[in-house]
Amino acid sequence: MAGLACGGRMHAMSHRPTPLPRSHFALFRTIHTRWMDNDVYGHVNNVVHYSLFDTAVNGYLIEAGALDIHHGTVIGLVVQTQCHYFESIAFPQVVHAGIHVAHLGRSSVRYELGLFADDAARSAAVGQFVHVYVDRATRRPVPLPPALLAALQPLRRTA
Amino acid sequence: MAGLACGGRMHAMSHRPTPLPRSHFALFRTIHTRWMDNDVYGHVNNVVHYSLFDTAVNGYLIEAGALDIHHGTVIGLVVQTQCHYFESIAFPQVVHAGIHVAHLGRSSVRYELGLFADDAARSAAVGQFVHVYVDRATRRPVPLPPALLAALQPLRRTA
Amino acid sequence: MAGLACGGRMHAMSHRPTPLPRSHFALFRTIHTRWMDNDVYGHVNNVVHYSLFDTAVNGYLIEAGALDIHHGTVIGLVVQTQCHYFESIAFPQVVHAGIHVAHLGRSSVRYELGLFADDAARSAAVGQFVHVYVDRATRRPVPLPPALLAALQPLRRTA
Amino acid sequence: MAGLACGGRMHAMSHRPTPLPRSHFALFRTIHTRWMDNDVYGHVNNVVHYSLFDTAVNGYLIEAGALDIHHGTVIGLVVQTQCHYFESIAFPQVVHAGIHVAHLGRSSVRYELGLFADDAARSAAVGQFVHVYVDRATRRPVPLPPALLAALQPLRRTA
Repeated sequence: MAGLACGGRMHAMSHRPTPLPRSHFALFRTIHTRWMDNDVYGHVNNVVHYSLFDTAVNGYLIEAGALDIHHGTVIGLVVQTQCHYFESIAFPQVVHAGIHVAHLGRSSVRYELGLFADDAARSAAVGQFVHVYVDRATRRPVPLPPALLAALQPLRRTA
Repeated sequence: MAGLACGGRMHAMSHRPTPLPRSHFALFRTIHTRWMDNDVYGHVNNVVHYSLFDTAVNGYLIEAGALDIHHGTVIGLVVQTQCHYFESIAFPQVVHAGIHVAHLGRSSVRYELGLFADDAARSAAVGQFVHVYVDRATRRPVPLPPALLAALQPLRRTA
Repeated sequence: MAGLACGGRMHAMSHRPTPLPRSHFALFRTIHTRWMDNDVYGHVNNVVHYSLFDTAVNGYLIEAGALDIHHGTVIGLVVQTQCHYFESIAFPQVVHAGIHVAHLGRSSVRYELGLFADDAARSAAVGQFVHVYVDRATRRPVPLPPALLAALQPLRRTA
Repeated sequence: MAGLACGGRMHAMSHRPTPLPRSHFALFRTIHTRWMDNDVYGHVNNVVHYSLFDTAVNGYLIEAGALDIHHGTVIGLVVQTQCHYFESIAFPQVVHAGIHVAHLGRSSVRYELGLFADDAARSAAVGQFVHVYVDRATRRPVPLPPALLAALQPLRRTA
């Protein structure tokens, strides 16, 4: 993966991270928190945010017919993830995960995600998540499949 | 948390992420992978890496007497995390998590972490993890406690 | 915990476990599955079912005002759990967790739970979950608090 | 799965559950706890115990060459699990998971598991775990494979 030039793209978001409004995101997925998500301090543990990112993106792609987990010849590998935490979330709050496609490369997609607890107007956390598409057998990068591109197009503009 | 100037410090690592050798890290913690860590592709899911980071850092701090989960008046909040993935890890491999303290601020610590599977010479993943120390009641930043500083000092130099 | 006579009560369910209809349960809680829930075989891992049980019961109790995680002087300890698996569940299915209070003791509650995937008429899994209420400090059993009894009453009859 | 006669076998253990000594188990697997395992009460959440059971059994089977996750024509389905909790476990304790094969059927195996924290002489929890082996494609029960039987034989006697 050494040749992937994804790293630099983190800069845009990382030098002044702030909570984002719901209008930044094109689509929302609802995910319930779980009892186990809360750690000893009574808040959703920082690790869980990444499970919510994964769940939001892959859930959308599967339902849009753009991700065939079992039989697809290409698979999306996660090469880089990132999260900034602004406020805590706690079970039993419900999370609305906003998704925005921030960049489409030849073989890669960079998503921006925002997690909103219940009716909050601003995101409790903001993350990034980069998928690189590879051939399932050779694990070499391949062009983004047409079905994926079609599913991602509506996520490029903000809501 | 809007005033925290942590974001910019991600740049150093993010613009050319590469696997790191074991010599980059001052200390290692061993953590077993679990059956559930493997996702549908048969590899440890990207989310799990953050649980290993959390476990390595907090395990060290607790055993060094620098983190009193239940009675401490200050607690460490995670404000930012990041990971680059270079190679997959799979259950039942054993992970050796290397820890390096990359930056000590007045109230914050930035850790670099590397995950090594079994006897691998180079890290399968490299991450960052920023703790800000706050008063448990007011949640306002406080200076890093002396016991914490003492525990972190040996992690500042590479092994 | 050696003196608790809960074990014998498992018998009723365990000698002929079968899927249950929705009408067996008094209340349902909706919980989204997550990408990570799927294991290498592409189905929700057997461990996750217990997280769904925990989430359903505690979510109901918190929202009913019968469980104060942070300040309550009594806490519910889980002393025994059990699950029979009849069919697989897979992300991104949505789970409807049915709750039935099967037994109320002086200090303990035994719940029966059923997990229904999407619109399924019969449960993919059936479980049991026994809480014993203890004093937070001494960890000795105490009578079930009145607020808890009030919240559990509607869960005793089947829907 | 309605025809499986596994349920009745739970009785032996369930009518007087007690902590077990290390000598009850034929083999031990070491598993580190994780920060996230602790719930809001500061103890390993009841769900995690099942992940430790899964990890102990499958880790042994994979290393013994008796479980080929990716290419095997038969797979082990979990049809029933159970746990009794006697004492709490807390991160960063290390768990030693004892394994005992309590019953071998034509297509099924019932394991008894005990979780020991650090140097404890008696188990903090005792569980059961029933695998039924099925054809990967048809999902119908098949005889236990010879490689599996060979791997399980040494786990039938207590240590």
